[in-house]
Amino acid sequence: MADAAIAEDALLALATRALVKGGMAAEDAAPAARVLVLADLFGLRTHGVSRVAQYLGRVRVGGIDARAPVRATRVAPGLALVDGANGIGPLVGVRALEAAMASAREVGIGAAFARASNHFGPIMPYAYIAAREGFASIIGTNATTTIAPWGGRGTRLGNNPLGIGVPTPGGDPVILDLAMSVAARAKIRRALKDGAALPEGWATDAEGRPTTDPAAALGGFLLPFGGHKGYGLALMVDLLSGLLSGAAYLTHVRAWDKEPEARQDLGHVFILIDTARLGDAGALAARMEDFKRIVRSTPAADPARPVRLPGDLEFEAMARQRRDGVAVAAEDLAALEALAGEPVG
Amino acid sequence: MADAAIAEDALLALATRALVKGGMAAEDAAPAARVLVLADLFGLRTHGVSRVAQYLGRVRVGGIDARAPVRATRVAPGLALVDGANGIGPLVGVRALEAAMASAREVGIGAAFARASNHFGPIMPYAYIAAREGFASIIGTNATTTIAPWGGRGTRLGNNPLGIGVPTPGGDPVILDLAMSVAARAKIRRALKDGAALPEGWATDAEGRPTTDPAAALGGFLLPFGGHKGYGLALMVDLLSGLLSGAAYLTHVRAWDKEPEARQDLGHVFILIDTARLGDAGALAARMEDFKRIVRSTPAADPARPVRLPGDLEFEAMARQRRDGVAVAAEDLAALEALAGEPVG
Repeated sequence: MADAAIAEDALLALATRALVKGGMAAEDAAPAARVLVLADLFGLRTHGVSRVAQYLGRVRVGGIDARAPVRATRVAPGLALVDGANGIGPLVGVRALEAAMASAREVGIGAAFARASNHFGPIMPYAYIAAREGFASIIGTNATTTIAPWGGRGTRLGNNPLGIGVPTPGGDPVILDLAMSVAARAKIRRALKDGAALPEGWATDAEGRPTTDPAAALGGFLLPFGGHKGYGLALMVDLLSGLLSGAAYLTHVRAWDKEPEARQDLGHVFILIDTARLGDAGALAARMEDFKRIVRSTPAADPARPVRLPGDLEFEAMARQRRDGVAVAAEDLAALEALAGEPVG
Repeated sequence: MADAAIAEDALLALATRALVKGGMAAEDAAPAARVLVLADLFGLRTHGVSRVAQYLGRVRVGGIDARAPVRATRVAPGLALVDGANGIGPLVGVRALEAAMASAREVGIGAAFARASNHFGPIMPYAYIAAREGFASIIGTNATTTIAPWGGRGTRLGNNPLGIGVPTPGGDPVILDLAMSVAARAKIRRALKDGAALPEGWATDAEGRPTTDPAAALGGFLLPFGGHKGYGLALMVDLLSGLLSGAAYLTHVRAWDKEPEARQDLGHVFILIDTARLGDAGALAARMEDFKRIVRSTPAADPARPVRLPGDLEFEAMARQRRDGVAVAAEDLAALEALAGEPVG
């Protein structure tokens, strides 16, 4: 189906109206929609406004509470515990981000640990919002289990993304948003449809044996990137975001796709550092530009593909889409208009 | 050459005497030696007391200052900047760890950014010391460049290890200590000696093309684990530990092996979270034991190789070596005795 191009402001307003119509208060819907629209701006369309329909579907079956009273409690000058109250994920995420930023403004560094949450979108929008205000960030979340521990057969871990961001005053930040599997399940489903074999190293069968057969892989487990190293990272992100926050972890996390009506009780962690306390903005900007220049000037193995920094592609997509409009699948846009109770088309 | 077994206390005293004889003050030498002895206890022998001779060799040629006045400055209640003053790396590391713990005790979370430092040993000892006092940790350092950016030909990044630790009150913590290359250069040198081909994915030649030839690899670059994902992590660790700390970064880092007399100006980052502020120790212990049980009970793909948690092997080695003595290569022990000015044997 074709893409539509829509202006950022119009997409934000539409997504906000859809969330309000779905039960959210306006002051909660707007920041949640902003996270999803940022995802689309970055070209991360599987985690953008296309998720509104999924979130509201779970609201309708009682799996998510659109009116959740999300609450942050400061337990120390630098620490907040956030009770997501089973609210819409990006709302919980934004409230946790705000709590961590408030602490970091006060004491130089701040963390928020959120529990009772849901899928909060991609990490890049949060790291971007933080960077725009001068904060370096380390952000993680746990997720529905899809990955087997290294050497095991049985899913125990989610794709548990980890994000790290560092601001460039006056310029684009550098942001890494890292999922822990080599490839997403969606890519394996596509290979099955196409009758294609998987590259080696993507997945195992149900017995934990490496496989290139997409059907066997879908009955088996995703492999973490980098073998035991990616396994270790996925596990530590679950400890930081799920276990320390008081949320569910490992197999205690319910699968939203199999049990849409169940509380997932996901956990997130946000750690923010106020770079203004480490030195002045001009010096940081100069060092960041020097850093980027050194990396980008590396001779490329393939001259047609210059060396890039984490986030480069996303910031290019953002600049392009702010100029030309945000590309959204026409069916997603129609669904959003229907959810907003507006005449489609 | 054979291994010697030596009691932990005796090894600590010997390494301390060697560092004092090499110029360090006693109150600086003891904590630095403790880091290295912990590395040996964990079985991380390439980063243990065998490094004393290397550190003191650089002291003799003026590359490291054994009497460096390492100084931590609190720039915010939760943040410290540490000037390593070109001191012995593990001393700078311990002082930065202490500064971050002091902040975390006060405001719940604390970070220390250290510059003007040197090789500080492995991360696991620091994360272990932190965990014993109830702190979760995120620790990183930059290093001599050995890795090419993804898609590039030219070393720009170090192996920049990242460590994450979470304590288990009354039990062993879970600690991941992650280097960013698939394999260490030492393993490639061994393959060259043995006339063996490298596994695919370890290294590229000088043109950035994948190679299994160890000679070509030694003239080329190490590959990051997980391809572009490991590259991204190595880069972010350099930004956090090198750039934000005010230290050298990327190609500004001098190679200690090629220029032993030059200041490396390495940077480290320590982020500590006081888990006692997030809930009571009994609840944390119960959740950690449940977490470990769920992971370890995963059916193993190979029944002879049960699923393990990050750090399991190291804590087993520590328990064994505390009982039976710490294994140290006889030549390393002899070198240490010579450095301590003691009769060898």
